[in-house]
Amino acid sequence: MHQVKNIEWVGDAPTGWLRLLDQTRLPREEVYLDCHEVQPVWDAIRRLSIRGAPAIGIAASFGCVLGAQRDQFEWAADHLATSRPTAANLFWAIDRMKRLAAKRGENPSVLLEEAEKIHAEDRAMCRRIGEHAVPLIERLDARCRGVLTHCNASALATGGIGTATAPMYLAQERGLAFNVFAGETRPLLQGARLTAFELAASGIDVTLICDDMAAYLMSQGRVGMVITGADRIVANGDTANKIGTYNLAVLARYHGIPFYVAAPSSTFDMSLSDGSLIPIEQRPAEEITEGFGKRLAPVGIKTYNPAFDVTPADLITALVTERGLIDPVNTTRVASVLEQA
Amino acid sequence: MHQVKNIEWVGDAPTGWLRLLDQTRLPREEVYLDCHEVQPVWDAIRRLSIRGAPAIGIAASFGCVLGAQRDQFEWAADHLATSRPTAANLFWAIDRMKRLAAKRGENPSVLLEEAEKIHAEDRAMCRRIGEHAVPLIERLDARCRGVLTHCNASALATGGIGTATAPMYLAQERGLAFNVFAGETRPLLQGARLTAFELAASGIDVTLICDDMAAYLMSQGRVGMVITGADRIVANGDTANKIGTYNLAVLARYHGIPFYVAAPSSTFDMSLSDGSLIPIEQRPAEEITEGFGKRLAPVGIKTYNPAFDVTPADLITALVTERGLIDPVNTTRVASVLEQA
Repeated sequence: MHQVKNIEWVGDAPTGWLRLLDQTRLPREEVYLDCHEVQPVWDAIRRLSIRGAPAIGIAASFGCVLGAQRDQFEWAADHLATSRPTAANLFWAIDRMKRLAAKRGENPSVLLEEAEKIHAEDRAMCRRIGEHAVPLIERLDARCRGVLTHCNASALATGGIGTATAPMYLAQERGLAFNVFAGETRPLLQGARLTAFELAASGIDVTLICDDMAAYLMSQGRVGMVITGADRIVANGDTANKIGTYNLAVLARYHGIPFYVAAPSSTFDMSLSDGSLIPIEQRPAEEITEGFGKRLAPVGIKTYNPAFDVTPADLITALVTERGLIDPVNTTRVASVLEQA
Repeated sequence: MHQVKNIEWVGDAPTGWLRLLDQTRLPREEVYLDCHEVQPVWDAIRRLSIRGAPAIGIAASFGCVLGAQRDQFEWAADHLATSRPTAANLFWAIDRMKRLAAKRGENPSVLLEEAEKIHAEDRAMCRRIGEHAVPLIERLDARCRGVLTHCNASALATGGIGTATAPMYLAQERGLAFNVFAGETRPLLQGARLTAFELAASGIDVTLICDDMAAYLMSQGRVGMVITGADRIVANGDTANKIGTYNLAVLARYHGIPFYVAAPSSTFDMSLSDGSLIPIEQRPAEEITEGFGKRLAPVGIKTYNPAFDVTPADLITALVTERGLIDPVNTTRVASVLEQA
């Protein structure tokens, strides 16, 4: 039993290196990549060995340190920025490293301090989310202490204890009785491959279900609350997250179960007034038809494969951010909690 | 484009044989098994090459004919009854063949007539369900003619055009505009492997989705009705069917979409007053964790894997039987429709 470490700097600058958990080998093998050069970090980000927006940003900032250790800081920063072209946290972290280098020089020790700071800030953000959310687990009825989650918003995707999983880790620290149900999250099975793996490794009581079992599980009185992460939350609280999240929100409402979303304030996009404005990406058919290494649907079958769905604010009991709970979820409350320093 | 034939008798007694579609090879290959002896029929039932309660009964009755062609009728009947120990239709069909043999002798031609009759009765039953259900497709709004189904209650499982799929085939015959969404149905993917295959082969416009995409699809106005089969319907109309059916019923209610269940009167179990009395089988973890040739969840992870769920009558807009529609769904209406000859 151990807390999985997805990102770890080993040793000191200018001779240290970056150790990354290779998430593409999960859950079959727990393999760590020791990156002494910039290129292996670029490769690890590109092929999803490290994934999750906060985790990518942290890995890239350590990658910049590796560049500085070889007198290649500028090249490293520019090169790492090409590893995942749409990751906002990636650009944000690299820019921050560049600004520091411009001010204080390309000193590996100074840059390492900054990368460690980015990592620590993310760790603290996760913990604050956990502190705001753990009372939700604490106050669950003694007869039903099951927490259902979907996809992966855990330590593996962040620099700390995750967002949706943060209250679970704090509940474990505090010795609270609870158990987790992880939805496997078709088509890409992040719940089965990542969330179930991480929670089980950490000694948390976790049970894996298929996504179509959620309603029956709820009807049996086994679910006291649902909590997920978010990909984008807009001004009125409407939330885009992995496909299947909206399913759970509707089922939770029908069964009278609270539905929470945990995400840092950086996830909020105040430029959009409501969720209908969020573009939803359609993904390739093969994720559905041959995602298990074996073709399981007819060749050429049409598919519908949206990557995300949008849960309307009125189905969300509360949003949990590092700045506190947004409850009830509406434009006024979103603005007032986000404005807190 | 062709209507898939899962069961076909080729030639005449006493030299004919039984041709079965090997459903274990679907959807990758469409392979037919020519059974000239009893044992290959027993094997085909046991290893699920032929499955679905009505289809198993029909295959076994033809298997009895193969036995009679070799002067082994008694042995064939008793042996075939051991192929799937819990299949009610299997025992029912074999008993019917035995009763006929006791009365009119073990004459292959006479027995073949009876097997063809069992097949024809099932075919007619499916068609009558279709005739009662096709107006439901007919009256869909022109802007939303999507029909969502779950699991496999199609021609492959019966002697005719299926139960949930029966109105789809009749709508196709009548040239009605409509399209089908098939939920893949985790864990065993009967929707992807069987329903999507069969409908696409028949030239019906079918789109495969993952089960967790249903709510988003409904919110986009793409689903005009939901229709599924049933494993057992009790006296008040509560319906046990493949896990995930209840999910869809709740989602349909939230989105104001009618939810129908199509099943023959033989599916009704009037000895149980409501759905809470239906035992729900828990299935092995491996169906979830490594069902498709590759381990996709951590070794030793706990799972929750109910094979069925129960949809309460109040979420079912109507039950469709070969004797007509049961609408509204309640104890009185169930009894009055089932009492019709």
